[in-house]
Amino acid sequence: MIVVMSVSASEAEIEQVVSAIEAKSLKALMMPGGERVAIGIPSAIPPEIREGLAQELGALSGVDHVAHVSRPYKLVSREFHRADTTFEVRGVLFGGSRLHIMAGPCAVESYEQMSEAARAVKEAGATVLRGGAFKPRTSPYSFQGLQEEGLKILKQVGVDAGLVTISEVMQPDLVELVGSYVDILQIGARNMQNFPLLVEAGRSGLPVMLKRGPSATIDEFLLAAEYLLHHDNHQVLLCERGVHPLDRAYTRNTLDINAVPVLKEVSHLPVIVDPSHGAGVSRYVPALALAAVAAGADGLMIEMHPHPKAALSDGAQSLKPEQLQELMQRLRRLASVVGRDV
Amino acid sequence: MIVVMSVSASEAEIEQVVSAIEAKSLKALMMPGGERVAIGIPSAIPPEIREGLAQELGALSGVDHVAHVSRPYKLVSREFHRADTTFEVRGVLFGGSRLHIMAGPCAVESYEQMSEAARAVKEAGATVLRGGAFKPRTSPYSFQGLQEEGLKILKQVGVDAGLVTISEVMQPDLVELVGSYVDILQIGARNMQNFPLLVEAGRSGLPVMLKRGPSATIDEFLLAAEYLLHHDNHQVLLCERGVHPLDRAYTRNTLDINAVPVLKEVSHLPVIVDPSHGAGVSRYVPALALAAVAAGADGLMIEMHPHPKAALSDGAQSLKPEQLQELMQRLRRLASVVGRDV
Amino acid sequence: MIVVMSVSASEAEIEQVVSAIEAKSLKALMMPGGERVAIGIPSAIPPEIREGLAQELGALSGVDHVAHVSRPYKLVSREFHRADTTFEVRGVLFGGSRLHIMAGPCAVESYEQMSEAARAVKEAGATVLRGGAFKPRTSPYSFQGLQEEGLKILKQVGVDAGLVTISEVMQPDLVELVGSYVDILQIGARNMQNFPLLVEAGRSGLPVMLKRGPSATIDEFLLAAEYLLHHDNHQVLLCERGVHPLDRAYTRNTLDINAVPVLKEVSHLPVIVDPSHGAGVSRYVPALALAAVAAGADGLMIEMHPHPKAALSDGAQSLKPEQLQELMQRLRRLASVVGRDV
Amino acid sequence: MIVVMSVSASEAEIEQVVSAIEAKSLKALMMPGGERVAIGIPSAIPPEIREGLAQELGALSGVDHVAHVSRPYKLVSREFHRADTTFEVRGVLFGGSRLHIMAGPCAVESYEQMSEAARAVKEAGATVLRGGAFKPRTSPYSFQGLQEEGLKILKQVGVDAGLVTISEVMQPDLVELVGSYVDILQIGARNMQNFPLLVEAGRSGLPVMLKRGPSATIDEFLLAAEYLLHHDNHQVLLCERGVHPLDRAYTRNTLDINAVPVLKEVSHLPVIVDPSHGAGVSRYVPALALAAVAAGADGLMIEMHPHPKAALSDGAQSLKPEQLQELMQRLRRLASVVGRDV
Repeated sequence: MIVVMSVSASEAEIEQVVSAIEAKSLKALMMPGGERVAIGIPSAIPPEIREGLAQELGALSGVDHVAHVSRPYKLVSREFHRADTTFEVRGVLFGGSRLHIMAGPCAVESYEQMSEAARAVKEAGATVLRGGAFKPRTSPYSFQGLQEEGLKILKQVGVDAGLVTISEVMQPDLVELVGSYVDILQIGARNMQNFPLLVEAGRSGLPVMLKRGPSATIDEFLLAAEYLLHHDNHQVLLCERGVHPLDRAYTRNTLDINAVPVLKEVSHLPVIVDPSHGAGVSRYVPALALAAVAAGADGLMIEMHPHPKAALSDGAQSLKPEQLQELMQRLRRLASVVGRDV
Repeated sequence: MIVVMSVSASEAEIEQVVSAIEAKSLKALMMPGGERVAIGIPSAIPPEIREGLAQELGALSGVDHVAHVSRPYKLVSREFHRADTTFEVRGVLFGGSRLHIMAGPCAVESYEQMSEAARAVKEAGATVLRGGAFKPRTSPYSFQGLQEEGLKILKQVGVDAGLVTISEVMQPDLVELVGSYVDILQIGARNMQNFPLLVEAGRSGLPVMLKRGPSATIDEFLLAAEYLLHHDNHQVLLCERGVHPLDRAYTRNTLDINAVPVLKEVSHLPVIVDPSHGAGVSRYVPALALAAVAAGADGLMIEMHPHPKAALSDGAQSLKPEQLQELMQRLRRLASVVGRDV
Repeated sequence: MIVVMSVSASEAEIEQVVSAIEAKSLKALMMPGGERVAIGIPSAIPPEIREGLAQELGALSGVDHVAHVSRPYKLVSREFHRADTTFEVRGVLFGGSRLHIMAGPCAVESYEQMSEAARAVKEAGATVLRGGAFKPRTSPYSFQGLQEEGLKILKQVGVDAGLVTISEVMQPDLVELVGSYVDILQIGARNMQNFPLLVEAGRSGLPVMLKRGPSATIDEFLLAAEYLLHHDNHQVLLCERGVHPLDRAYTRNTLDINAVPVLKEVSHLPVIVDPSHGAGVSRYVPALALAAVAAGADGLMIEMHPHPKAALSDGAQSLKPEQLQELMQRLRRLASVVGRDV
Repeated sequence: MIVVMSVSASEAEIEQVVSAIEAKSLKALMMPGGERVAIGIPSAIPPEIREGLAQELGALSGVDHVAHVSRPYKLVSREFHRADTTFEVRGVLFGGSRLHIMAGPCAVESYEQMSEAARAVKEAGATVLRGGAFKPRTSPYSFQGLQEEGLKILKQVGVDAGLVTISEVMQPDLVELVGSYVDILQIGARNMQNFPLLVEAGRSGLPVMLKRGPSATIDEFLLAAEYLLHHDNHQVLLCERGVHPLDRAYTRNTLDINAVPVLKEVSHLPVIVDPSHGAGVSRYVPALALAAVAAGADGLMIEMHPHPKAALSDGAQSLKPEQLQELMQRLRRLASVVGRDV
């Protein structure tokens, strides 16, 4: 529910609305606009009081009208926050006109591999270095990551290269540890509805990139993001990374390109696209990366490995350094005609 | 199976291979290349003779080697035809560097509506006019189309405006009738595996645009196109128009953007994308149209209606004339940086 | 819209309602009930007259109330026809308490094969013999069926064995031909939305089994059946045969068992389940057949081939004669505890 | 890889094979059979030594042959463990001929609600009481469960009624706490690939029921279970609870009935089916429950609430106590004809 004040509403009238909301043990969220103020109620309103509350608030002095929110999510919605969210992470501004490219290997394997990767990422003009230390692997027999050792390497090479870093956290009791090494926490697709993890990442206040689950609907995705904002973390990036495909004969997933304009419309959060998982095959990554930017994405996450054939995981979908460099040049040309820069 | 001749193979040696193939009651397809010739066998080879045949042909004089084809389709595959297919329809060349935009209403409703639509399509710079006369409708209670009367209108306004025309045919015994009015036959998503229709459209020799079924895999789609080429029709456009979505809360389908680079890689046929059905909501159409071109599509099919709110079908996904015009300008800027023109 | 008359409504009052409906060029369908009569309107009512019409009819003498229909389909709905539909085909009653098992090979291959199959089907206690003559094949290189020659064989062995016969028809202009040889027309999954075919099969008045498309929703399926009833054919069997699977590593499709209780609830038409396509692997067929009957199916369609390994199509999902016989015994035991007989 | 010994192999020969395997730092798993012993290698064998190892082991004295394992999972596979796994939890034997029915409310709401539920579950003849204390909820605004307080209630009423108890655990650091109150840990569908949780639940040694994720393939599901066995927990129940549906117009999920015979064939673990989530609508639950047992399920998990309309979550899919009782009677009749008892 959103209470929209009239243009001429006074401070006292606004205060009165806030008090009336809080008197019901609900939260009141100030939503300043151009000409007029609105007050949102980002809580679940018990159905039995909803109608009465709307009438009560609507009758208060200075209130223009009371609007019902059409979607199950609130804080992530443009209904509650009209302008694009922007936030800065060590000098990198997300959500603005500049596209940010996150690149690096699926997994941190060694200091040498990561420092070679960081150099390539930097030279290509990307701003964020990725690398997994705690790896969610479908099989217990696959490489499970270097864990804390990997985070140390990532931090070191990130600082040396002047790159922002991002890495995945898989369980609530490791949020603090991972957050002490990297700039952005990644919550992976398989953990999109790991609610204790969402709560802990929300409470941490650290920048978080939330990946959409492979069969999550848009509403389920945005409600997962709502957990983060609900625990007072507004530095959130939404990442589309492909949904369950019709078959896996050619690609591992189907990149849901529709999600880009839909998310940009209904939410104010920046939208990142991961064409590497969206395809699962490196030679299709450039086409999907370009498509994502043309569709309105605010950034990309791309797997790049200095030596894809030797990669301990996801080698098949990793670009080589020179392929990343070439893609960046194509992205720059594209950005120039869609009102962005890289 | 493909028999690759050595660079120095003589005409007589090539003849001998062709004869050996035909002696098994199989087809032999000449595949001229840059330096060397190959001979394809676009027939189903009975499994019990496959190995013996490969040995027999491999031993013939002038044969370099015998290659097995990895996919179930043959004639539509780049393995059988390396270069991009191009063909011309009344001055419009498909498959070249120029993108072709097909636009118009879902259904032909009246002469006035179509002539208004044709003017808008022409002014926007599109080259093909669409309009359904025989409409496949989910419910028997929905508008079923003007049928032959609609085709007459479409032909008339197409000729007057100097636009190539396309319309759907739904049953084999109407291929001739529809083909007598329009330049390109459309086979719709629901009829992708209507095999008698494919056979008849193949035999007609008329240009055909085949739409992918909403749950068809890439192999099923290309095998449907194979029916057309198998009946000696090579003027075929492949059209991706969205697959079954995770849910329909925001869009009617999920545009399978991955299909664009995949189809361009494995097939030589031009690839058209329909962002109108891919989204099902007109305000998302521009983002998907731009994405499709960025990903490598050779053309677009876009629903545009002079008065979308009054449309008898698909109004919700139709652009207005001025929206089409604006989109065309954005497509022109985009084309210039991806090596295409509009 | 359904006009429910009061218990004491007279013939004249009923007549008056029918006249008022027909005066709007709409159909009026008499729906006799136990105590009271209702009159349904199985037409699309233009939205602009809906409200006025409901008021006009509601004000007529003898009318108890006017009910709005909640689903897009009408004639196939239990809202329009409360009792289970039953109909007899050459002594076989569908829709009653007896389960009917349809069995036989995917394709008619020869007289010998079919007469061996018919003997096995008869001995197992099944009542309907299946066999495809016109085959919808994904690839043009697969066996396409014996066509009319196959229908002759099917008819002959059906008559000799005293079995009802069923075979697929794939195009509207062959409805009459196929109908002249077999007792029940089958419309296959790929043709579920082949509307000209539905119209022609509807007009034929012949018993039709309509298979659900692999990605068709329940509403799309029932609207396809609505085409048949809309053209005055009420001898319709609904067949669930599996939907598009998550992956094809173990089975070709996912049998949608939920569809059985859903269809039985919302429609009055008999529901047949095809566990052979639902699994695609013969050793899983018995489990799915038993599950379908436990869930409430009115019959089964099962692929059985006298020599599955030599089958020209679908051998992998065909039972052997002795496996069918054993399954029939298990079905008999199961039927006895779920209030059915075989 | 599995090394199959000859019938006459001696203890010393078996020892030698084990030593040869362990010399490569791989695990050797003794697999006693009827007549002959086999030794499995449930580790990931580096591809570069695989061929050499197979040859080396095949040449050892007493070895009959070396078999390659066709699936990515090992310990959960029937290739590694032929007989059905059975285990007992407080007198309840899972995996035997007796079907076990788990029933109870979605969430523990109060002592009164649970003790009423427990009585109904006991009277109906079910053996396991379910009730969620830590609830995974799509929205942060939904009821999140009574947490530890809920576990205390569940334990109390379970002991009083003589019922085994099951409840969900959502994070690794709560495995011990939840395990101290309940007899069986449940890992929910959304956490199927929460690998730290799987590892911790594996290490706990407590009985675990693992629910399949809504878009998980069979291989992904079994690899998740493999994590549990890999950490030495063999008391594992597999639970099918429905996959992502084509649409949600009638049911929340599509129960994957195919999964029942497939899982019974490829794995030795007991298979439980949850028809409540599989349908999402209580009136379809009985049909799906019967279908699951007919297809070969070893047990069912059914949501039942003493007062469904007042339920804090999942009321729409909960049976009433009398409906559970009636269903149990139908299950008993069904069990008698499929070789099971309840």
